[in-house]
Amino acid sequence: MKMVKVIGSVTSTIKDDSLKGVKLLFVQMVNIDLTERNDFYIAIDTVGLGEGELGLIATGSTAKRTDITKDRNIDAAIVAKVERIDLENINHIV
Amino acid sequence: MKMVKVIGSVTSTIKDDSLKGVKLLFVQMVNIDLTERNDFYIAIDTVGLGEGELGLIATGSTAKRTDITKDRNIDAAIVAKVERIDLENINHIV
Amino acid sequence: MKMVKVIGSVTSTIKDDSLKGVKLLFVQMVNIDLTERNDFYIAIDTVGLGEGELGLIATGSTAKRTDITKDRNIDAAIVAKVERIDLENINHIV
Amino acid sequence: MKMVKVIGSVTSTIKDDSLKGVKLLFVQMVNIDLTERNDFYIAIDTVGLGEGELGLIATGSTAKRTDITKDRNIDAAIVAKVERIDLENINHIV
Amino acid sequence: MKMVKVIGSVTSTIKDDSLKGVKLLFVQMVNIDLTERNDFYIAIDTVGLGEGELGLIATGSTAKRTDITKDRNIDAAIVAKVERIDLENINHIV
Repeated sequence: MKMVKVIGSVTSTIKDDSLKGVKLLFVQMVNIDLTERNDFYIAIDTVGLGEGELGLIATGSTAKRTDITKDRNIDAAIVAKVERIDLENINHIV
Repeated sequence: MKMVKVIGSVTSTIKDDSLKGVKLLFVQMVNIDLTERNDFYIAIDTVGLGEGELGLIATGSTAKRTDITKDRNIDAAIVAKVERIDLENINHIV
Repeated sequence: MKMVKVIGSVTSTIKDDSLKGVKLLFVQMVNIDLTERNDFYIAIDTVGLGEGELGLIATGSTAKRTDITKDRNIDAAIVAKVERIDLENINHIV
Repeated sequence: MKMVKVIGSVTSTIKDDSLKGVKLLFVQMVNIDLTERNDFYIAIDTVGLGEGELGLIATGSTAKRTDITKDRNIDAAIVAKVERIDLENINHIV
Repeated sequence: MKMVKVIGSVTSTIKDDSLKGVKLLFVQMVNIDLTERNDFYIAIDTVGLGEGELGLIATGSTAKRTDITKDRNIDAAIVAKVERIDLENINHIV
């Protein structure tokens, strides 16, 4: 999985039927020191993240295996909220 | 999914049989501020996008799960039209 | 799919049995203005491309879904010949 | 597979049910000379690696094929501990 | 597939059971002029390559379709030895 920060959302009414009823979040890849990378995904949220919060995204066929994303034609889903990061001698409380 | 802008189309008469009857759109990856990235895909359109419009593409095996792309040998499909982007305190009406 | 140009071929007699009887083409990724990128694949040709011609490659599990590549252990196949590219106000006859 | 170094862990209580009961390790890609790359994954550990140790990660659908990761919605798993690297005339005992 | 050069091997005794009995080769991506790229994989060899020899790797789910890699939790396998490269007007006997 990759660590991402929620930075916004996308509105789409014209879309594949399988995408109805889920929120499309705009997420940005972040580094371990929480600085931002110039890489973005639009992902389905399965854990209820708010803007500015950190999560983990699964991409590829895995993204459509969760209870919420099953049978949806997506390739990126947020599968966990990041609450704390422990790096060797540094602890980040997110 | 990744956000893309439709920039053109590709004509191909010599192709895998499974690609017959669908339009091959040339799409360019875009950043959140809608500036263009130097990264391109040729994707099957499932939502009726016109040139210059923004959409979301799904890549990999997911691309061939929609009603329109089922059983087609493709690895990129436009699955949603982007109508509005909401970023923290900035709203983009596309 | 990604747009590529055929630049050569690879000869291999020691290979997985499933690769026997198909041609391994050396292809180079190209930009929309047909300039070359520093990125290469070895792909199975399913449409009969010659050197210097443009095609579309499908990568990943999709590559082995065509009639020609079925049951072959490959991850890249040329699935279409590019005959014409239409970009907003510019038409390229390839 | 790619070679990675364990640099920490991630705590998440709000996550997909399938991620319960496994440790989420923060891993960093490394070069052959063990210098670090600016590329990170959060991976499930299947071999018991400690911080600073080297392992191999499998990504994509393969990641959920091990006995430990079966039926978990993940796209990265550590599948081997790297104990020794042999390069042409140089042997690294890790 | 991508063209790689074998540069060494990895020893691992603590690994997923499915990886037992196969050799883990360290391979480096190479350009068409055989210069080296700063990109590496650890791949299962299915064709008997020695150090310094060139091969083709298949990545992703395809890697575990060969007779040798079946049911192994890997995402990269060498599926062909490169014996000769023909580029437009240049022939490389490897």
